Amino acid sequence: MSDQPRVIRKQIGNFLEDFVPGAVFRHKGGKTVTDGLFTTFTEFTMTTNPLSKNARYARAYGFEGLVCPPGLVMLVAFSQTVEDVSENARANLEYIDMRFGAPVYVGDTVEVETKVLGVTPSKSRPNLGVVHVQSTARKNPGAADEAVVLTWQRKVQVWKRDESAELHPGTADPDPIECDLWLPEHDPGVDYKSMAHLSNADTYFEDFEPGTRIEHSRGRTMTSEHIQLTAVLDNTSQVHCNQYMIDLNPKQYVGGELIIFGGIPFVLCLGLSCPNVGDNAVGDLIYRTGRHTAPLFAGDTVFAATEILDKHDLVEREDLGVIETRLHGHKFVRAKEGDDPDPEAPEGWRKVPIFELDRDVVVKRRSHYG
Amino acid sequence: MSDQPRVIRKQIGNFLEDFVPGAVFRHKGGKTVTDGLFTTFTEFTMTTNPLSKNARYARAYGFEGLVCPPGLVMLVAFSQTVEDVSENARANLEYIDMRFGAPVYVGDTVEVETKVLGVTPSKSRPNLGVVHVQSTARKNPGAADEAVVLTWQRKVQVWKRDESAELHPGTADPDPIECDLWLPEHDPGVDYKSMAHLSNADTYFEDFEPGTRIEHSRGRTMTSEHIQLTAVLDNTSQVHCNQYMIDLNPKQYVGGELIIFGGIPFVLCLGLSCPNVGDNAVGDLIYRTGRHTAPLFAGDTVFAATEILDKHDLVEREDLGVIETRLHGHKFVRAKEGDDPDPEAPEGWRKVPIFELDRDVVVKRRSHYG
Amino acid sequence: MSDQPRVIRKQIGNFLEDFVPGAVFRHKGGKTVTDGLFTTFTEFTMTTNPLSKNARYARAYGFEGLVCPPGLVMLVAFSQTVEDVSENARANLEYIDMRFGAPVYVGDTVEVETKVLGVTPSKSRPNLGVVHVQSTARKNPGAADEAVVLTWQRKVQVWKRDESAELHPGTADPDPIECDLWLPEHDPGVDYKSMAHLSNADTYFEDFEPGTRIEHSRGRTMTSEHIQLTAVLDNTSQVHCNQYMIDLNPKQYVGGELIIFGGIPFVLCLGLSCPNVGDNAVGDLIYRTGRHTAPLFAGDTVFAATEILDKHDLVEREDLGVIETRLHGHKFVRAKEGDDPDPEAPEGWRKVPIFELDRDVVVKRRSHYG
Repeated sequence: MSDQPRVIRKQIGNFLEDFVPGAVFRHKGGKTVTDGLFTTFTEFTMTTNPLSKNARYARAYGFEGLVCPPGLVMLVAFSQTVEDVSENARANLEYIDMRFGAPVYVGDTVEVETKVLGVTPSKSRPNLGVVHVQSTARKNPGAADEAVVLTWQRKVQVWKRDESAELHPGTADPDPIECDLWLPEHDPGVDYKSMAHLSNADTYFEDFEPGTRIEHSRGRTMTSEHIQLTAVLDNTSQVHCNQYMIDLNPKQYVGGELIIFGGIPFVLCLGLSCPNVGDNAVGDLIYRTGRHTAPLFAGDTVFAATEILDKHDLVEREDLGVIETRLHGHKFVRAKEGDDPDPEAPEGWRKVPIFELDRDVVVKRRSHYG
Repeated sequence: MSDQPRVIRKQIGNFLEDFVPGAVFRHKGGKTVTDGLFTTFTEFTMTTNPLSKNARYARAYGFEGLVCPPGLVMLVAFSQTVEDVSENARANLEYIDMRFGAPVYVGDTVEVETKVLGVTPSKSRPNLGVVHVQSTARKNPGAADEAVVLTWQRKVQVWKRDESAELHPGTADPDPIECDLWLPEHDPGVDYKSMAHLSNADTYFEDFEPGTRIEHSRGRTMTSEHIQLTAVLDNTSQVHCNQYMIDLNPKQYVGGELIIFGGIPFVLCLGLSCPNVGDNAVGDLIYRTGRHTAPLFAGDTVFAATEILDKHDLVEREDLGVIETRLHGHKFVRAKEGDDPDPEAPEGWRKVPIFELDRDVVVKRRSHYG
Repeated sequence: MSDQPRVIRKQIGNFLEDFVPGAVFRHKGGKTVTDGLFTTFTEFTMTTNPLSKNARYARAYGFEGLVCPPGLVMLVAFSQTVEDVSENARANLEYIDMRFGAPVYVGDTVEVETKVLGVTPSKSRPNLGVVHVQSTARKNPGAADEAVVLTWQRKVQVWKRDESAELHPGTADPDPIECDLWLPEHDPGVDYKSMAHLSNADTYFEDFEPGTRIEHSRGRTMTSEHIQLTAVLDNTSQVHCNQYMIDLNPKQYVGGELIIFGGIPFVLCLGLSCPNVGDNAVGDLIYRTGRHTAPLFAGDTVFAATEILDKHDLVEREDLGVIETRLHGHKFVRAKEGDDPDPEAPEGWRKVPIFELDRDVVVKRRSHYG
C-alpha cells in the first residue's frame, strides 16, 4: 500500500481516574478449569492433600472428583480481575476477607465480577492512589450447580494515566455475599480409616498446638517457568513477561528483571506448607488478610513457615475443627558488604520475608478419620 | 559380549532426491488433542477469545465445547508433516492457501497426508532445492464426525543427501480439497447479549476500519520453554532441541544456538493480536500466504501488529462479516556500532520483522451479538 | 505476639536405622493420572508409539483409550516411593526385575506399597548402608478394574541420621506378586493394515537382528524444566529443586548444581529409542536390571542407543514376539586438558554413559499387522 495506515494503540486496563466507587466490572473471558490447568498448578505447588491428587480418595470423601486446591481457585479467580483492576497498578497492597465457597472441579467455568469500594488519592504522590475493590467468583453461571466459589477484597496502588485528571474519591459499601465453605458430610458408612495411610498421620486437628511455628522443610527454586505459569492464568501484566520493556528502562523496574507474579509465591507457600498443615484439611475457610513484602525473581528459592495462632471447634461438626494460622514465605539472598549479620540466616546470607497470609483451615479430627 | 555389535544408524526424513511430484505421504502417528495439549498452547499464546477459554460460552454459541484456536489446529496438523517433509530442510519458505474446515475439540484425533506438488532444483546451489507440497488434515477418520479440519500448501528448501543424486523435478496438480470453515448458526433463541461482557466491546465487524494498523500492546519473552513446546507438537527437527549438535559446529547454525520452531512465533503472534482482532471471531477462514522473515531465539521478546486491509460481507450470514488482515510479528535487537538509527525502534535498538501472515477472519457483528 | 513460638521442624523420609527387613510402607498420596500429566510426559519423552498418541488407533488395537507409555507408568509408581525410601538416599544403585501388568489409562488412580527386603551396613562408611526394597503399584484399589500395574525391586544407598544408631541388618523374602503384561487380543475382524502407515515400517519383530546396535539419531537438551517435571511426579527430593541448599554447601553436591532426577533420563532414553524400537511395541514386559552411571544436569543433551541382545517367540501369541534389548543413554562433555582422546566422541569431547537398562519388549509381527 502506498498510503501509510493510520496506527492504533489501544489502552489496556483502567487507570486511577477510571475507578468510580460503586461501579461494577464484569470481567472478560471467564475460565473453564481444564485438566491441564489443574495438573499444572496442583503439581507446581507440590500440594500433598490427597483430595487434589487421588480421585478415589476425593470421591470417598464425598467430593465429585479431584478438588482444585484453594490456591488454584484463588489464582483462577484473581487473575480474571487483573486487566480491569491492576493492569496499571504499581503494587498489590493487601488481600482482605478472602472467603471460599463451593468446591471447584475440572470442567467448571469460573466467572468474576468486581465492585469498586473506594478510591483514595495519594497525599504525597500526585500520580498515584489506592483503589479498594470487592471481587466475587461464581462457577457455572446459569447451570444447576451455579455457586459462589470465592469472594474477597483487595487494595491496589494504581497509576493515573493523566496526572491532572479528575478523580472520583469516595467509598461504597461492600455487597453482602453469601459465601460459606462447602463441606462434605461425615458418612459413618465410609471406611475412612482404610485410607488414612494416604495422608500424614500427624496433621489432624488434635495435632496442632497454638503457639508453635512449623518451619516447612522443603524449598523450591523458581525459574523462568514463571512466565508460562502466569500466562496460563491469563494474567496479562507486562512486568511478568516482557523483558524488552524492562531492558528499555531497567532502572524503573525493581532489579531490572521480570518480577514473578505475586500469585505464584502465594500458592507455592500454600503448597510448601501442605505436608505439615494441609494434608488432612478439607478446605480453606478464610484468608483474613495477606500481603507481599518483597518481590520474587527467577533463581530465588522459596521457603515457608506456618505459625499456629489458635484453634477452635466448628459448629455442628464434631468431626472437624478449625486451625488459625499465619503462613509466612521467605527467601534468602546473599548479604552485601557491610550488612549486619542476620541471626535467622547462615553466614553470608540474609533472610527476606516475601509473603504473609492469615489463614483459617478446616481440618479433620483423628477421632473420626485417622 | 566379546563381539562388537553391528551399528545401525537410521535415516530420518526425506532429502531432495526422495521427493517425486504426485507422490503422497500418509504421515505417521496422528495426534489426539488432549486436554493437556489444548491448555498448554491456548494459554501459551495468550488467546483471549472466550470460545477457547469458557466452555459455557462456547456451548451457548453452538460449539460442542472449548474450541481449539486456529493456531493450535495449525500446529497439530503442520507438525505431523515435519518428519517426512522438512526434517532435512534448510528453511520453510512460504505458507500458501491455508484453509480451515471443521472445528477441533479436545478428544479429536487429527491425521494428515501430504501430496508432492513440485520439485525444483536450485540453480545456484547444487545441494539444495525447493519442494512444494499440499497437506490435508482430517479429524476422526472412519467416525461419524470425520471431517477435514485444515488444508494448505507450503514451499520448503530441502537439502540433498547426496549432491550427485538424480532428482525428480516437475510438478503435479493440487487435489481439490473441500474445506470450508464450519460456522455455528445464529440462534435467535440464545441471549448472546447477556454474554457480551465476556469479550471486548470494540472488536466487532463494525469496528474494523480498512487502512488502519493496530499495534498490539503486549509483548512476550520466549525462554528455553520452546524446547518442550516443540516436543509437545511432535516436531522432531534437531535444530530446535539438540544443543550438542550445534555446539559441535556452531558456525553452521544461525546465531550458534537453538532456533525456535517457526510454528511458535506463528501462533504467538496470533495470540498477541487476539484482544484486538480475534476476541469476537468465530473462526479463521484462510491464511492466503505467510512467511518467516527472521529467526527467533530464547530471550527474544515477540510483538505483533495487524493491518486491516479490507472487509466484506459473508454470503447468507448477515450476523457475521470477514475482515482481511495482515498480521506482522517483530522483535527488537540491540543495534550494533555503525548501524543507522532505526526510526521504528528506540535509540540503540533495531526492529526486526520475524513473521507475516495474510489472514481473513470471520467476525461477529455487534448488531447481532454485542 | 510477645512470646516467641516454639519452632518445629519435621523429619521427612526415613534414614538407614528406620528400615526393618519385612516391614511394609503404604505410601502416601496415591496419584490419579490426569490428562495433563499424561500429555506432559508422553510428549516430553518424544514417544512415537501411536498407542500413546492416537486414541482411535489405541481403541482399534483393543485398548480403552490412549495408553500410558511404560516410562510414565514407571515414573508415577516410582515417585510415590521416594519420600519413604529414598528422600535421604545418597544414590539409587539398581533397578531390578521391574515387571509391567495392566495398562494404565488417563483417570486411573495408582497407589503403591513397598516391602523392605534387606538392610546392609556399609563396611567402609559408618554413616551409610544399602536398603533393598520391593515395591508394587496397583491401580483403582477397590474398583472392578483393580489391578497390579508394576512391581519392581531396587537397591538404594541411604544415609544414617545418627551415626551411632542401631541398625536392623538382615533380609526378608520378596512377596510373590502376580504381575504379567496385559496384551490385547489379535482380532481378525480389525483391519490393522489400514493403520500400518501410522507407525514405522521397519520396527516389527521380523526386523530386529540380534547382535546389532541401533544408534538413535535424535538428541534432546535438558533445561531447568526438570524442576517442574520432577514436581509433577511428586518427587520431593531437594537435590532436584532447592538451589539455595546447594549454594550453601556446593562442594557437597556433584557439580554444585541441581541434579536431574534419574527418572527423567530413564524415560527420555525410552522415548529417544521409540522410533526405532518402540513404535510397534504393544508393551514392555520386564526391565531385568538397570542403573544410572553418571548424573545429568540442565544443559546436557541426552542421546540413546539400543543393543538387540536376542529375540524369541511369545507363548500362544503367533502375532507377537519378544525382543531382548539393552538400552544405553549417554551425553557428551567437553574434554579437559590432558584427557586422552575418546574414540567414541568428536575431538575435544568425551562420551559419558549415563544410563543402562536391560529391557524386554513385546513387539508386533509384520505378518499380522504390517
